[in-house]
Amino acid sequence: MEPAARPSHLLRLLPTLPILAWGRTYDRGTLVSDLVAALIVTIMLIPQSLAYALLAGLPPEVGLYASVAPLLLYAVFGTSRVLAVGPVAVVSLMTAAAIGEHAVVGSHHYWAVAITLAFLSGVMLLIMGVLRLGFLANFLSHPVISGFISASGLLIAASQLKTLMGVKAEGHNFIDLAQALISQLPHIHGLTLVVGGSATAFLFWVRKGLKPLLIRLGLNARLADVVAKSGPVAAIAVTTLLAWALDWKEQGLKVVGSVPQGLPPLTMPIWDFALWQSLAVPALLISVVGFVESVSVGQTLAAKRRQRIEPDQELVALGASNLSAALTGGFPVTGGFARSVVNFDAGAQTPAAGVYTAVGITLASLLLTPALYFLPQATLAATIIVAVLSLVDLGILKRTWTYSPADFMAVLVTLLVTLAQGVEAGLVSGVAVSLTLFLFRTSRPHIAEVGLVKGTEHFRNVLRYDVATSPILVSLRVDESLYFANARALEDRINDLVAERPQIRHVVLQCSAINAIDASALESLESIDQRLRDANLKLHLSEVKGPVMDRLQATNFHKNLTGKVFLSHYQAISQLAPEILKAAKTG
Amino acid sequence: MEPAARPSHLLRLLPTLPILAWGRTYDRGTLVSDLVAALIVTIMLIPQSLAYALLAGLPPEVGLYASVAPLLLYAVFGTSRVLAVGPVAVVSLMTAAAIGEHAVVGSHHYWAVAITLAFLSGVMLLIMGVLRLGFLANFLSHPVISGFISASGLLIAASQLKTLMGVKAEGHNFIDLAQALISQLPHIHGLTLVVGGSATAFLFWVRKGLKPLLIRLGLNARLADVVAKSGPVAAIAVTTLLAWALDWKEQGLKVVGSVPQGLPPLTMPIWDFALWQSLAVPALLISVVGFVESVSVGQTLAAKRRQRIEPDQELVALGASNLSAALTGGFPVTGGFARSVVNFDAGAQTPAAGVYTAVGITLASLLLTPALYFLPQATLAATIIVAVLSLVDLGILKRTWTYSPADFMAVLVTLLVTLAQGVEAGLVSGVAVSLTLFLFRTSRPHIAEVGLVKGTEHFRNVLRYDVATSPILVSLRVDESLYFANARALEDRINDLVAERPQIRHVVLQCSAINAIDASALESLESIDQRLRDANLKLHLSEVKGPVMDRLQATNFHKNLTGKVFLSHYQAISQLAPEILKAAKTG
Repeated sequence: MEPAARPSHLLRLLPTLPILAWGRTYDRGTLVSDLVAALIVTIMLIPQSLAYALLAGLPPEVGLYASVAPLLLYAVFGTSRVLAVGPVAVVSLMTAAAIGEHAVVGSHHYWAVAITLAFLSGVMLLIMGVLRLGFLANFLSHPVISGFISASGLLIAASQLKTLMGVKAEGHNFIDLAQALISQLPHIHGLTLVVGGSATAFLFWVRKGLKPLLIRLGLNARLADVVAKSGPVAAIAVTTLLAWALDWKEQGLKVVGSVPQGLPPLTMPIWDFALWQSLAVPALLISVVGFVESVSVGQTLAAKRRQRIEPDQELVALGASNLSAALTGGFPVTGGFARSVVNFDAGAQTPAAGVYTAVGITLASLLLTPALYFLPQATLAATIIVAVLSLVDLGILKRTWTYSPADFMAVLVTLLVTLAQGVEAGLVSGVAVSLTLFLFRTSRPHIAEVGLVKGTEHFRNVLRYDVATSPILVSLRVDESLYFANARALEDRINDLVAERPQIRHVVLQCSAINAIDASALESLESIDQRLRDANLKLHLSEVKGPVMDRLQATNFHKNLTGKVFLSHYQAISQLAPEILKAAKTG
Repeated sequence: MEPAARPSHLLRLLPTLPILAWGRTYDRGTLVSDLVAALIVTIMLIPQSLAYALLAGLPPEVGLYASVAPLLLYAVFGTSRVLAVGPVAVVSLMTAAAIGEHAVVGSHHYWAVAITLAFLSGVMLLIMGVLRLGFLANFLSHPVISGFISASGLLIAASQLKTLMGVKAEGHNFIDLAQALISQLPHIHGLTLVVGGSATAFLFWVRKGLKPLLIRLGLNARLADVVAKSGPVAAIAVTTLLAWALDWKEQGLKVVGSVPQGLPPLTMPIWDFALWQSLAVPALLISVVGFVESVSVGQTLAAKRRQRIEPDQELVALGASNLSAALTGGFPVTGGFARSVVNFDAGAQTPAAGVYTAVGITLASLLLTPALYFLPQATLAATIIVAVLSLVDLGILKRTWTYSPADFMAVLVTLLVTLAQGVEAGLVSGVAVSLTLFLFRTSRPHIAEVGLVKGTEHFRNVLRYDVATSPILVSLRVDESLYFANARALEDRINDLVAERPQIRHVVLQCSAINAIDASALESLESIDQRLRDANLKLHLSEVKGPVMDRLQATNFHKNLTGKVFLSHYQAISQLAPEILKAAKTG
């Protein structure tokens, strides 16, 4: 097999691009599956990309531009077979919040800042990918993400109400938005509200009522789903035709207007370091949120087909996608939940489906844009509202309340701060709260006194199990790594125990839950040992983990330890207080 | 014994002031010990309190004022028998840094702000004491405190060089100070440098050379120590006499000048909420640093006599001390290291020694201040320099480097930032670095595959021990609590293992080191279980701790778990893969 080994060795030297894995086995069956999926996703993506561009405060065609190049780049670099990249609701909201401070909505500068934001986000994602920093996203806990997405959904829905009502109202938080909307109530444009309201009602019905109806009428479930998912397209087609036929624009209904026909333009970010600095934090938050959303969708779908995605490679893929968005007139993009699920359900087999979708969107930008002239903006607002309200999951509050008050607090703070102060403050405070609560918990460790479970070699909490103990020996199990924030808790506990029970001769720490001992905790252990020595007691350790023991080996604490280090707690007890073993047998 | 029980019951209703414990058994022997200790501490405290007041940018008499009322209050509320409260070097430096932004050194407003700072710090300490928040101080790890104290010592020494050289140079960080000093080199005042330099050399000799000399000359060690500790008083007496006799003031040597004679004045803080707000952070840092310094000295000395101190009660005592400092013209105070050790060595038995010291300082303020007129400021600078350089311990860098790189980083960052940016930035970045490194470590948990140690019921890492395993079962021990930052690591590891070894039927998690499972980690466990179910594998848990099991009990994860929860890992293996037991016996 010598000769065969050489080329495979060479291949290993090639960059391991995911496209090389699936590209080699691409056949006609896969092609057909991918084409069908691409067609369905394209139909879904056209209204979404227009709507999310408007949500971000950008001209609608920018949404189309952001749905071409990023899909191609993701197909080359991405590890998910079915992730559909493009503009998504939450990232568009964050984009609007970030740019709002630097430019006036509708200005050319606003668009240029959006392009710069996509550029910075792309660079950051690429750097994080190359440095393999994907794990940093783990610090956004599930509860924080969940609270953030729900609050963002509510914010987006509120921000779209103005378009639905035909008034002007700005604000990047719920309170400002609500105030602006209420002050505008007398100026509601009746026709706009009727069109927008009907579209919303129709879309909700499509989502909740149409699919079950179609299934009852005999359609198979998957087809019913696809028909239901095309509801937005129907709403757009119908209201656009009506707006054209009934001359609604003349009656004050806002329409999308002329959308430039053509391929995405070549663009460049603004090379202004001061602007980059002030966009750095929003760009980082957009990158992390986009990455987390993308990876969680990707992992969920990959697991269903026993595939895996590679988070660090996903960072590279999303980074390349965003860079390409910046170079082709787009704005920040990421993997979208709804459209990836549609892509998966429609049978997409490989990222080539994304390439075909990009072709579909290009055709739409070339040919379809004149048809969008009479598309009412209220209809787009309706599609956004219905899409984002499905993101709102307030049940998480109840679930976390039952399971873990700390997680509940994290959700609640994220939710409220996002609503009250906007997306950036919300995310940052969510992370801060969850880290603080984690630190708080680890700073007050659970310390159990343990005894031998009868008939076993296993030790458990004396308060919970019927165990054997001895008056001359106390076995303690600290349920936390020992570090600066909790080092003193153990000192206090041992001091108290020794003061309470004059018969004690040995203190044995079962270290099975101690995963690390830092320098502060080492000093604490030294002073515990010193005090026990002065009182003529001995301190022993058992079940010290390998990595912890490696470090302790060279310390004075280990050299001067009054007692011994035992492999298992059972061995320690056998040697120091064999009467416990007897009690556990007879008991 | 019925009648006797009533008064003791009544006594229990009284506030449990520490003074009630030691006051009841106070006798003549204790009185003599306390008086001797108080005399020695008074002699030491007079120059220190003058010097630290100047270090804080305040008139020297303020140091005396801060050494009366706080000592009385600490004697009533404090739990340490020997802690000597008063102005200390590091807190004086922090005071100067905090006030420097609000007032001009030497102005009456500057003093008023110092009083306000003591007031705020007192209020904060009291609140922390009442809310039992003493544990918060644990977040200042030993390495951070050590780096901070060393850097502060260097900063203080540098700040005193200007007085020693007879020039003007200001700056709250090392770089500014060094630049200012270098630019002033041409303006050095020769006589001042000679006086200051000789005093410094003398004091260093007293510290290093005098005590061994006295011991060689036949003095007992304790007496030699007391004589050596009185070196500053000798330096002050001699240089004051010389300055008076040789008219050094006329030759441009700066002297302390007229110090008002009299009792500490009654004062009030500035009632200005805006000022309070801007002093809040420095006041908090001063409170925490003062508390930590005080408690660590107190605990060290208490342990030597088998006494205990109560950290939360110490907060109350230090809070009352600082409030009293604010009401009697003082500035922030805390327990000092050197003078508490002197107090202890001189044989102080109860806090009454502090009361006698306060009386001594009062007498000094009433009678001694005219004698201080000719005291050269350079001599005070020399006493400060020699005192603070003993705080500098750069050996901590080497010790932490060997034991723990994370702790080394924390020391280094604290040290460098304190020197480069000042005390507040230094402390805050030290805490931030140590918390970040802790989070980083916990986010990448050690996950060991374990097997049965032959001849025992104990399981250890397959890579470190000769253990028995089975191809159909994998035992994993996660050495960390499962929480949002590390939940995915376990998912990844199990996915990889299952993909690598097609024979696996059971995955058993030994949960002995898992001290908590948060909502994010619970979702991860659910998806692990779901994936294993799909692949026809089972997930089991063993040795789940009581508090963790209590929470899991009610979850869907527990209800739907593919496998079982075992009390001990040994029981799990006995049931799922008994061939391992056989292998461990025969092996």
